Amino acid sequence: MRPIILDCDPGHDDAVAIMLALGNPAIDVRAITTVGGNHVVDKITANALGVLAACHDSSTPVYKGAAKPLMRPVEVAETIHGETGLGGVDLPSPLREIETDNAVSAIIRLVMESNPGELTLVATGPLTNIALAARVEPRIVERLREVVVMGGAISGGNWSACAEFNIHVDPEAAAIVFDEPWPVTMVGLDLTHQALATAQVEEKIRALDTALGSFTLDLLAFFRETYRDVEGFDDPPVHDPCTIAYLIDPTIVETIPAPVSVEWRGELTRGMTVVDRRAQAAQAHTRVATRLDHERFFDLVVEAISTLSHRKDNAHV
Amino acid sequence: MRPIILDCDPGHDDAVAIMLALGNPAIDVRAITTVGGNHVVDKITANALGVLAACHDSSTPVYKGAAKPLMRPVEVAETIHGETGLGGVDLPSPLREIETDNAVSAIIRLVMESNPGELTLVATGPLTNIALAARVEPRIVERLREVVVMGGAISGGNWSACAEFNIHVDPEAAAIVFDEPWPVTMVGLDLTHQALATAQVEEKIRALDTALGSFTLDLLAFFRETYRDVEGFDDPPVHDPCTIAYLIDPTIVETIPAPVSVEWRGELTRGMTVVDRRAQAAQAHTRVATRLDHERFFDLVVEAISTLSHRKDNAHV
Amino acid sequence: MRPIILDCDPGHDDAVAIMLALGNPAIDVRAITTVGGNHVVDKITANALGVLAACHDSSTPVYKGAAKPLMRPVEVAETIHGETGLGGVDLPSPLREIETDNAVSAIIRLVMESNPGELTLVATGPLTNIALAARVEPRIVERLREVVVMGGAISGGNWSACAEFNIHVDPEAAAIVFDEPWPVTMVGLDLTHQALATAQVEEKIRALDTALGSFTLDLLAFFRETYRDVEGFDDPPVHDPCTIAYLIDPTIVETIPAPVSVEWRGELTRGMTVVDRRAQAAQAHTRVATRLDHERFFDLVVEAISTLSHRKDNAHV
Amino acid sequence: MRPIILDCDPGHDDAVAIMLALGNPAIDVRAITTVGGNHVVDKITANALGVLAACHDSSTPVYKGAAKPLMRPVEVAETIHGETGLGGVDLPSPLREIETDNAVSAIIRLVMESNPGELTLVATGPLTNIALAARVEPRIVERLREVVVMGGAISGGNWSACAEFNIHVDPEAAAIVFDEPWPVTMVGLDLTHQALATAQVEEKIRALDTALGSFTLDLLAFFRETYRDVEGFDDPPVHDPCTIAYLIDPTIVETIPAPVSVEWRGELTRGMTVVDRRAQAAQAHTRVATRLDHERFFDLVVEAISTLSHRKDNAHV
Repeated sequence: MRPIILDCDPGHDDAVAIMLALGNPAIDVRAITTVGGNHVVDKITANALGVLAACHDSSTPVYKGAAKPLMRPVEVAETIHGETGLGGVDLPSPLREIETDNAVSAIIRLVMESNPGELTLVATGPLTNIALAARVEPRIVERLREVVVMGGAISGGNWSACAEFNIHVDPEAAAIVFDEPWPVTMVGLDLTHQALATAQVEEKIRALDTALGSFTLDLLAFFRETYRDVEGFDDPPVHDPCTIAYLIDPTIVETIPAPVSVEWRGELTRGMTVVDRRAQAAQAHTRVATRLDHERFFDLVVEAISTLSHRKDNAHV
Repeated sequence: MRPIILDCDPGHDDAVAIMLALGNPAIDVRAITTVGGNHVVDKITANALGVLAACHDSSTPVYKGAAKPLMRPVEVAETIHGETGLGGVDLPSPLREIETDNAVSAIIRLVMESNPGELTLVATGPLTNIALAARVEPRIVERLREVVVMGGAISGGNWSACAEFNIHVDPEAAAIVFDEPWPVTMVGLDLTHQALATAQVEEKIRALDTALGSFTLDLLAFFRETYRDVEGFDDPPVHDPCTIAYLIDPTIVETIPAPVSVEWRGELTRGMTVVDRRAQAAQAHTRVATRLDHERFFDLVVEAISTLSHRKDNAHV
Repeated sequence: MRPIILDCDPGHDDAVAIMLALGNPAIDVRAITTVGGNHVVDKITANALGVLAACHDSSTPVYKGAAKPLMRPVEVAETIHGETGLGGVDLPSPLREIETDNAVSAIIRLVMESNPGELTLVATGPLTNIALAARVEPRIVERLREVVVMGGAISGGNWSACAEFNIHVDPEAAAIVFDEPWPVTMVGLDLTHQALATAQVEEKIRALDTALGSFTLDLLAFFRETYRDVEGFDDPPVHDPCTIAYLIDPTIVETIPAPVSVEWRGELTRGMTVVDRRAQAAQAHTRVATRLDHERFFDLVVEAISTLSHRKDNAHV
Repeated sequence: MRPIILDCDPGHDDAVAIMLALGNPAIDVRAITTVGGNHVVDKITANALGVLAACHDSSTPVYKGAAKPLMRPVEVAETIHGETGLGGVDLPSPLREIETDNAVSAIIRLVMESNPGELTLVATGPLTNIALAARVEPRIVERLREVVVMGGAISGGNWSACAEFNIHVDPEAAAIVFDEPWPVTMVGLDLTHQALATAQVEEKIRALDTALGSFTLDLLAFFRETYRDVEGFDDPPVHDPCTIAYLIDPTIVETIPAPVSVEWRGELTRGMTVVDRRAQAAQAHTRVATRLDHERFFDLVVEAISTLSHRKDNAHV
């Protein structure tokens, strides 16, 4: 099992990432840490607890993280994720409390208590917490196994002409994370725009005929609508769980080595992940995801939802 | 015939652009204006006169332009174009003098004397002269028919991870030119990296068996070598004449409408041509070249060299 | 006599600068060039012609210059100078037409036709024209005697916390002008905030009992009011004529050598004139004005108004 | 007694600040936190322990903080503080170990455990730790009583034309600290360049005839020499203890309310503390120190050294 900390801002696709991480036997979620991103951190944290409850998970600790980006004012994606940050569903009551420690301290503690090369950090929101942790306790950089980031793009953005939302809203944090010498895998729009929740995908989830399946379908229905209206997509791209799928099976999310830097000083290019395709990439400590196996990816997702649904049933017994 | 001013910095591919412009019957070169770019402006201007002499042209006036970028120190491409800016050939003696007027004044005068919508500006070097002209006499903006720029790239640069040389060395000038509301056509690396001077192309030029053909082959041999050593290309991309080919026959250089802005404030992205592929492009005053008809393009080039060679023979008679 | 080109954006204090330059026997105004600044260039140019008419001057040519800053959108000081750019007065009909040549070409031509070290450029508006001229024809840089700039400040601005209006609105142009190696004298707010048009000054002008005196008093009355309301001054600072006074008699406007650079990339500091007081200043090509002899300065102004008024009377004979 | 956390980078003047804080009865040093600045954080932290030992203090905990600035490479002031960061003295062996917790966590814990409005943060190095703490745990912002910063300048810098060292090396951290709504008092160069360790000051310390006095004189001798050679000062400015003196008696360090922002995007102005003297200052959450009572200030310093020296003697008994 691959132990991870999931740093996220649920968010519709973050919710699916949580499900995949909890429901897949290859992943061991040691903690969920939250960060202001898709919406403000208080809503995000409540959403994380609600999604855990929907997954019948009462054991994963949730730590609240950064309320604002390092240098920029708060900017949320309410047009995509709705007023609550998780539009389209009513969340069940949380099964546990928010931890008293903050997210950054928790990340540092968990990493420093783990064995070198044991823990992986998965970040599906702005990189504020991760950047802060790296500056507060630089020793985590060599102790972590890998940082897997949903964010960025080789070419073309969604929040500006050339920047993806997570990187755009906190470009300074992203620059810190991509510049530290740990292995960073960027699962950007080039990959996640392949992860479209088609009608067939929805059909498979519907066929599960479970409460969590319905919950997921409600999330996707909302996401489908905002992505169609705001971004002109036919089917919504389910970005965040791609990071988890990559950890479960790297043949599902193909990556290549490539040097990645983050522009934090540009005007038009703020938050662009600059991938130097001219460079000798062999030595790069960064990789970028390029190709998704759509079918196997969504099969993993459906399977995880199924697993979590049955866990509930077993719990009932 | 399409009357143009050719603003250039020869430069190997600029030299080929001059040949194509002078040798093709659809193009009427009213003036050549020079700009510091591939090398310093004094060498560039001498090169322009030398290339005209090699083309047996004694009638095209040459105006010397900007010696340095608007805001940045001079940066030349000596690794690509050699110490003279036109490595690999000995230039014949010039057939005429440099005009006394400066390039910017000449551009303004020629445009203001022309009919509205008559003249086209072709720029194959940094955009310093064009930007200066637009600021010194804003009325040229609506009087010109079009500005065709060799420079920029939709994705991926050659002088930095995301910037092409001409835009990189004077990003402020480029920002001015792309922001003015005249029609601007960007013939960037996406297009010009298709314009590879292959062995077959060289063979066709060799078959002409003319002095200008040999001159061109010498240019290409030098260019091939530096492009191989510095940029890792098998065959050198002959960027600049693509602008002229576009004017001769837009089915040879296909373009699409797309909003283009230039990043002049970024650090990693200085001089990037930001093309917003999310945007409604119908209203954009800018177009970007996307696809080259390689065979027809080089046929135009070979034909022009042939025409210019015969012009010489006729002159001899 | 000191021959000058006066590059200005009248503007109340520019108008007084024109009077001082025309009315003082030590100054020979070869041309007035205009630039968008205190208001848009068309209004500014009309104002220049009107002020010349008020001065009974029909011989000084007026060339229209840059309509907008190099890189920034147009930003005018209407709150200070009113809707016309010269609030508080009705201008007499112009005595001559705007020249057909543009300001930048005129500057270049006049400088290149003058002897080396003969002409001085006085700039009392944004430095757009001067920067353009230096880039279009670099030879003017060593041919000019001096560039005297009203603009900037050693510490503390009026258009932002640390920038003065003329530099703030076109910081890139200012950076070009201060960086070129010609002698530049910065007559900034440190100096011009000493040039307060007090009640006693107005009294001396009133005592002239001439039409031009009344015209000037109307200008000052308007300026007094806006400066009081917008900037909280008791008496308005008559910035621009300080440059002319400096040329007439440098004991009236004391200067010291000091390295000056212009910040064009900052956010809070855009357009700040950075004066390095740590540096060895002896070699600096820039000087900054520090102390004004208030009484002798305004005596020069009053005298010039008187001279111009009598010139009118003579003209009548 | 005023409880403080002293965040510092000793550094010669930091050492004196530690002495003043420990030796004055009005100040209660709850912790010393270190930060990379005058030298790298490992040397800085060793220096802090050594200075505490020289002060015979074995009770103040020392927490190691940030090794590098948020966004910039490490830049130290070795030319001023020597190869060890505390040139001119041999440090006694430390009396205690570095705490295991990191500085940022310690700051957060101490502040959250204190009563609202109880604790004051004094920062005499780069503001990296403070900025990190504010982002990791935003609730400290309203719980702290005040942040007192040695850094910045109203006009004129020491590490660039307009920036002071502490702000220059981590301008992003400084921007965060000055922008948060807590009360911030800037004790900048305007104030600390008045804190010159003259021969008379040294004489008073010599007269104490104690080991700690000699230690201090050695520090000042080294500081005098580097400040003379590098900055051209006759007497060295003892910056950092001015912050402590301000807390002990604000009539010794006079302050005025004024809005302060930090420029982190400029090129020439990077790390400038922009003080808007035009603004209505009454509502500003920031104050700037303007005038030092030199005699009373150094009397406090001498007294503190004396007190600490006697504490040692008592300890011997």
